[in-house]
Amino acid sequence: MIEMRKITVASIAKQAGVSPATVSRVLNHRELVKEDTIQCVEEAMRELGYRLGRKEQEEKGTEKPIILLNIPGVDNVFYLDVIKGARISAKAHGYHLLLHESPLSRGTIQDFCELVVQVEAAGVILLNKVSEESLQKLNALTPLVQCCEYNENAHMPYVSIDDFKAAETAAQYLLSSGRNKIAMINGPGTFNYSVHRQEGFLYALKNADITIPRQWVLQLPEISYEMAYAAVSRLLKSESRPNAFFAVSDVFAAAAVKAVKKYGFRVPEDIMVVGFDNIDLSIMTSPAITTVSQPRQQMGYAACEMLLEIIDNPMTEVKSIILDTELIVRETA
Amino acid sequence: MIEMRKITVASIAKQAGVSPATVSRVLNHRELVKEDTIQCVEEAMRELGYRLGRKEQEEKGTEKPIILLNIPGVDNVFYLDVIKGARISAKAHGYHLLLHESPLSRGTIQDFCELVVQVEAAGVILLNKVSEESLQKLNALTPLVQCCEYNENAHMPYVSIDDFKAAETAAQYLLSSGRNKIAMINGPGTFNYSVHRQEGFLYALKNADITIPRQWVLQLPEISYEMAYAAVSRLLKSESRPNAFFAVSDVFAAAAVKAVKKYGFRVPEDIMVVGFDNIDLSIMTSPAITTVSQPRQQMGYAACEMLLEIIDNPMTEVKSIILDTELIVRETA
Repeated sequence: MIEMRKITVASIAKQAGVSPATVSRVLNHRELVKEDTIQCVEEAMRELGYRLGRKEQEEKGTEKPIILLNIPGVDNVFYLDVIKGARISAKAHGYHLLLHESPLSRGTIQDFCELVVQVEAAGVILLNKVSEESLQKLNALTPLVQCCEYNENAHMPYVSIDDFKAAETAAQYLLSSGRNKIAMINGPGTFNYSVHRQEGFLYALKNADITIPRQWVLQLPEISYEMAYAAVSRLLKSESRPNAFFAVSDVFAAAAVKAVKKYGFRVPEDIMVVGFDNIDLSIMTSPAITTVSQPRQQMGYAACEMLLEIIDNPMTEVKSIILDTELIVRETA
Repeated sequence: MIEMRKITVASIAKQAGVSPATVSRVLNHRELVKEDTIQCVEEAMRELGYRLGRKEQEEKGTEKPIILLNIPGVDNVFYLDVIKGARISAKAHGYHLLLHESPLSRGTIQDFCELVVQVEAAGVILLNKVSEESLQKLNALTPLVQCCEYNENAHMPYVSIDDFKAAETAAQYLLSSGRNKIAMINGPGTFNYSVHRQEGFLYALKNADITIPRQWVLQLPEISYEMAYAAVSRLLKSESRPNAFFAVSDVFAAAAVKAVKKYGFRVPEDIMVVGFDNIDLSIMTSPAITTVSQPRQQMGYAACEMLLEIIDNPMTEVKSIILDTELIVRETA
């Protein structure tokens, strides 16, 4: 490892007894900072030996600022188009986009905070649901925007969809197609989408006076084709089997389609399947999957644009964005 | 953007008139550097005001070094497991793994070199095929390992597979199944894999005294399901159609399976399909795809382990690694 002497925003903040965000504002938007705070920060900078000569300023001018985008897991194809959208925005504005994988849990958030300081990230985009405490810790270091997943209690900006409504619409479509025995293939309950889609799904069933056995809501610990295939197969073996599946991911839906066919039933005649996401996979299966389309690329793009707005105008109040979903009717329902 | 005064390896190298790699060695492995070079570098460091106090050293001690992994395109699912493998290795050794997307072409290599200096990358893993000139430029800044794609002329370490042999084996399997009219669905010719798999494929055909029309080697500009679907559909409309397809990607193979079924032919009875990669998709289609399995996760893991070895022992001669592939026979051939 290369050892370097580096005066960071964090070290100036520590010396001055203020937050790194305040130091950043003094450096970039002193018009927003009180005069005595400016003096206090500048004093700390002098003590640490900070000075920015003209030549150094010119050298620094070639460095592009960095945006860090954190994903909960690199193996979920859902994120690819979200990343693509963020990358288009970052590139257009002359920023580097760097991707990092971390659960950003209580045990790993410190590691990520250190990385943010280390690369002097101009801002971060989080695709995780992060605790309020961790979000505040992170936001003291750098501007942040949540994307797809978000913490509703944290009062921090996000770009997402209305998971409740999207799931309700999907369930209503199956009900209107005459299905009354609908099972749900859900993901881990630690995610927002999982909780809200389940609520929306059960709400639609309740409104249609339909109750389903508790075990028909399958809760899988990860977006795994094999796990979904096994879980659906178990349900299909029982006498009173579902005549429709609502899956929170096209990967789960693809597993359901395969399992249903394997057990000799027809899709959609005997058993319908509706997926979620509208990833490329949904047109590759036979039959092609009817699914809820998420505007993945737009979510990534909008999140990055929002972050850049906050970086440029730290005192701006930005409003969170909920983008529309759409049910794409193909062959499985 | 936050403006910081930062003494980088690059600026010390410039001041001392040596390469950044030499500065890095002076900082980390002075036992490998000649005494007068050490003095020259230390003089430059003093001139720039570099000093590493004990307290600063302790502060720096919590920083994990960074490995940059560059991918040519974020939307190719093939890379996900390669990244996963690299991440397992990096994490185990206490390194941050950051992902970056760039073609690393003549026009973009400078941008990446600046990023390497900016984040003080301890090393880089490249999933691109990069020109010899660019590789040398990059290697002057930091240790590097090529993974999957590589430049054969550059004499720099890589981890990959034997694309020629893998393609030859796949073609031989189709030939031994009685197929004599075999088309190939290939990717862009700028990639190594594309060139070598085509050579291996044509070599197997030549050995079996089989010639095919030139237009039966489809060369698509990207790994796109839609493009492959359209290209295969065109071939199927002609009178003298192929009775087998060898695809360099499971995405292409999935498109071929779908198109063949769409035109009323049976897979594998009328037309066989063999894919490449063994990504999850290959078991999700109906029928499931017979494919050449690439050890994706192992490639990423081995590349990162190799890089860490070079970082720890800069003077070590490392040997490139060719990992084995395996034909997985499923339902399409």
